[in-house]
Amino acid sequence: MKLLEERIRKDGRIYPGNILKVDSFLNHQIDVSLIDKIGEAFYEAYKDCGITKILTIEASGIAIACSAARFFNVPLLFAKKSQSLNLGNDLYTTTVSSFTYKKDYQVTISKRYLSEKDHVLIVDDFLATGNAIIGLAELCRLAGAKVEGVGICIEKGFQQGGTQLREMGYSVTSLAVIESMTDDGEIVFKS
Amino acid sequence: MKLLEERIRKDGRIYPGNILKVDSFLNHQIDVSLIDKIGEAFYEAYKDCGITKILTIEASGIAIACSAARFFNVPLLFAKKSQSLNLGNDLYTTTVSSFTYKKDYQVTISKRYLSEKDHVLIVDDFLATGNAIIGLAELCRLAGAKVEGVGICIEKGFQQGGTQLREMGYSVTSLAVIESMTDDGEIVFKS
Repeated sequence: MKLLEERIRKDGRIYPGNILKVDSFLNHQIDVSLIDKIGEAFYEAYKDCGITKILTIEASGIAIACSAARFFNVPLLFAKKSQSLNLGNDLYTTTVSSFTYKKDYQVTISKRYLSEKDHVLIVDDFLATGNAIIGLAELCRLAGAKVEGVGICIEKGFQQGGTQLREMGYSVTSLAVIESMTDDGEIVFKS
Repeated sequence: MKLLEERIRKDGRIYPGNILKVDSFLNHQIDVSLIDKIGEAFYEAYKDCGITKILTIEASGIAIACSAARFFNVPLLFAKKSQSLNLGNDLYTTTVSSFTYKKDYQVTISKRYLSEKDHVLIVDDFLATGNAIIGLAELCRLAGAKVEGVGICIEKGFQQGGTQLREMGYSVTSLAVIESMTDDGEIVFKS
């Protein structure tokens, strides 16, 4: 997606350790007009898959899921990272290792909102190690729901997540795939 | 807002201790068409205030902020509850006590995205003790930004947050104000 690649080049900031910060437009401050183009791109990719629900994980995925859900005209569901006292006990739960936060955490959804009738599109802002997406796919498996696809804004192509998910058989649509980036700010996108 | 009150009556669930769960449509699974009506209502209330930014707190506020931001055609910014290793050091930070989670937590935003030029609309799903909103207003104060208003989906009118915020001088627009609710499921809205 040209628009997203251009925005990453313009407003992304690179820090040592292959860290790309896009918090001016994607995951802290959010440019809703860009997010809407992203939601539309996911709709174009999966509009014939009978999607019944958009699934993401708090917090960065929610705005993206919100836009996608509008195009598909289905609800969105976001998995929670910590167990709220108010969420109840009827939960599907799995464990995810966070690369960013360097720790494991529980990811949960209420059993009420995902079932074997659902055809799910998983969306998120980044795909790197793939751990968060694999966790969301595991929640779908526990619920008996079918994962029809995975929509990603930015895939770090030099990490193993994308390859691993595709080898597992998932349809992954990444709108910008970074092949390499250097500490002095150069980004090469996979064409 | 009649639509929201009706939805709360239809799909909200009440648990002992004045807990109202609206996670089937507002803050776990999300009905985007309802959220869009909410965003529009906030726009109607504050469209003449020169709003430059919608501010909320992760995670439940993000979808609502996203919809409001679309109507105002401004960016949204969500405060983070835990300090990401990737967020950097240039942060405004304050402490919030969570009624739901029974603990204190840090709330942060990047200094890059809020300044004395901003006219802010704060939005969130619930207003009860008011602690989260007061924390967001404090972040605005630290940045020198002006809080033009506070848009709330559901205010628990029997808790002190709304009164406190209004006494502090904030313009608070709550789309549904619950005057009382009983453990057997009866809800009385303030008219």
